[in-house]
Amino acid sequence: MWNYKTPGVPDEMFIQGDKVPGPTKEEIRVITISKSRLREGAFVVEVGCGTGGLTVEAAFQVGPKGNVYAVDEDPAAVKLTKDNVEKFGLQKTVRVIQGASPEVLSSLTAADAFIIGGSHSLVETIRIAHEKLKTNGRIVVNAILLETATTALEEIKKLGFKEVDVVEVFVAKGKAVKSGTMMLARNPITIISGTKE
Amino acid sequence: MWNYKTPGVPDEMFIQGDKVPGPTKEEIRVITISKSRLREGAFVVEVGCGTGGLTVEAAFQVGPKGNVYAVDEDPAAVKLTKDNVEKFGLQKTVRVIQGASPEVLSSLTAADAFIIGGSHSLVETIRIAHEKLKTNGRIVVNAILLETATTALEEIKKLGFKEVDVVEVFVAKGKAVKSGTMMLARNPITIISGTKE
Amino acid sequence: MWNYKTPGVPDEMFIQGDKVPGPTKEEIRVITISKSRLREGAFVVEVGCGTGGLTVEAAFQVGPKGNVYAVDEDPAAVKLTKDNVEKFGLQKTVRVIQGASPEVLSSLTAADAFIIGGSHSLVETIRIAHEKLKTNGRIVVNAILLETATTALEEIKKLGFKEVDVVEVFVAKGKAVKSGTMMLARNPITIISGTKE
Amino acid sequence: MWNYKTPGVPDEMFIQGDKVPGPTKEEIRVITISKSRLREGAFVVEVGCGTGGLTVEAAFQVGPKGNVYAVDEDPAAVKLTKDNVEKFGLQKTVRVIQGASPEVLSSLTAADAFIIGGSHSLVETIRIAHEKLKTNGRIVVNAILLETATTALEEIKKLGFKEVDVVEVFVAKGKAVKSGTMMLARNPITIISGTKE
Repeated sequence: MWNYKTPGVPDEMFIQGDKVPGPTKEEIRVITISKSRLREGAFVVEVGCGTGGLTVEAAFQVGPKGNVYAVDEDPAAVKLTKDNVEKFGLQKTVRVIQGASPEVLSSLTAADAFIIGGSHSLVETIRIAHEKLKTNGRIVVNAILLETATTALEEIKKLGFKEVDVVEVFVAKGKAVKSGTMMLARNPITIISGTKE
Repeated sequence: MWNYKTPGVPDEMFIQGDKVPGPTKEEIRVITISKSRLREGAFVVEVGCGTGGLTVEAAFQVGPKGNVYAVDEDPAAVKLTKDNVEKFGLQKTVRVIQGASPEVLSSLTAADAFIIGGSHSLVETIRIAHEKLKTNGRIVVNAILLETATTALEEIKKLGFKEVDVVEVFVAKGKAVKSGTMMLARNPITIISGTKE
Repeated sequence: MWNYKTPGVPDEMFIQGDKVPGPTKEEIRVITISKSRLREGAFVVEVGCGTGGLTVEAAFQVGPKGNVYAVDEDPAAVKLTKDNVEKFGLQKTVRVIQGASPEVLSSLTAADAFIIGGSHSLVETIRIAHEKLKTNGRIVVNAILLETATTALEEIKKLGFKEVDVVEVFVAKGKAVKSGTMMLARNPITIISGTKE
Repeated sequence: MWNYKTPGVPDEMFIQGDKVPGPTKEEIRVITISKSRLREGAFVVEVGCGTGGLTVEAAFQVGPKGNVYAVDEDPAAVKLTKDNVEKFGLQKTVRVIQGASPEVLSSLTAADAFIIGGSHSLVETIRIAHEKLKTNGRIVVNAILLETATTALEEIKKLGFKEVDVVEVFVAKGKAVKSGTMMLARNPITIISGTKE
């Protein structure tokens, strides 16, 4: 058994739900976690946790002294994230909250990183992240919509984040078929990150 | 300061050399490390270490009880990898060897993972990896040539590796220009991995 | 009405079948046709015509004085290609044949271009194409399997085709959703082409 | 010799300039032309003609009865486009104008298609395109900046264009090296198109 402290939980290890998207695929998860620059003991806020793939990875990164606060508006996502947190034995590290991001985030104290996978109020969520992040804290936004990428980038630049980084990642995954390996494309993701000054 | 135990050393932290390719970019590095499923204390062999980007990441993953054995045919790459290993204080974990992979690998004992970035004798290197890997050890090949991807995949399947995985990764990185964000493409990489049965 | 002589029939104009893949999407169709360098009056052979998307495009390119000979092993594909040929009024230009490519191609006379979308006997089909092509005739292979790309490229180089060209094309298509534009990826295609010396 | 009426002039046939970007590569050119749905005799306006790659392709599509009006702010681009127009013998079809797009476009009469490759006043140019296009005329915008894609899409939707289409295209081109075929990536392009209602 490999230990789970390294990012890169295989996709199939997560419990999945019919009505909840995800988990974020391994390749995107590890890039997202890498961009978050998490250290042991960090406090991470994740908005739009979905299946909980990034939640679990972040929890492994911050370790038992760290904390992950995962939020989703969808009760089914909250349930599924909780199931995955439990499967990986991370209940002490992770707290999963159901609610709209502006409301549930307002009470938070200083965070080391915000990972934003999706939100109905993206700009407001980025603003709250900026407000709640410690100096040198990291924001990472995963965008699957064309508009989300530019909106997030614009807001992140406007708020004065430094080391702003944008990568678009296109992954095709091989599927063994009778005559060879068919490359099945996954939707491209744009990952925008920055450091609070 | 974030600790380096998490994969994802920013590209610009590596010492770079004019004549040596690399470092493997952050996004590809973390996927490669993820596919290697490294745990603390593991023994990793890296063939074609180049600048040493993956060497450093692997060393952080296996920790002080682990070992990384990095090989390159090019003396300039060996020098550069050593410089990066030293920069990150990983001399006790990493041994860098100059030589053609078949020769320098033949004396090795059982390894937990082989990371193959490039080799003039790819098929032979994969065979040696198969021979030297422990049961459940991992092989990961990063291919930048069209032919390398299929050759590696064919050999890995022929040798009976299980959980064979192929992903092609295309990354474009945003560059801030006067009028916006230009997306600069990086060459696609195909990452083939498997587990020794 | 725009005239159909220009490549780029919108995807939705083709009759589609449940059991037949295709049509090759507009973006890939126009690149494939471009690589074929078709001129008016040319004789084009298409192997693996599927839905008939490339058949129809090729027929528009070669015009009423040209000929397209489309082959597929699958009777359902033959039927569907015929339906599309009829829909676009190209019956005089196109002949659709059901059969394995080596057999049905052996009787052909000199061709200006071979467009190979798929074949159970790829290497043999490329050899027949080489044999049947006129000097300066074009071969174009569309590969969706990792192995097909390298096999085709190797054979095309071995047979001495000149101006060998390889492009891999990744397309994501925007889909309007409530909150913006979701980019849906299509599987990458590798297009290999060359000119008979 | 193949006739140039079909899109797909090989890249190397264009005269190139040190200081002018382009030509738009074959793969992107043919998709752009396809999205323009040009017919013989059409009047096409091209904004930001650069090297003239799309200008030449558009001219071949509309034929001797059609017209292409190509605009660029950069005198070097105007010169280079004129050189390419001359090389392909299309002087009677193409008129190349130097100037900022809003000014030089205001005097135009009804156009069948606008192809917008770049502009310092993108939104205004799209508005002029909308004003000048005939019913069922086509607009096609090629975006290399993240922000241009969303700005163009937003404006095109706001103006009520129908059949709005967004595709992002990633191309890697094979380069023969000693040990195989290296896939060299080109920057991704987002192509947004629509039909004037």
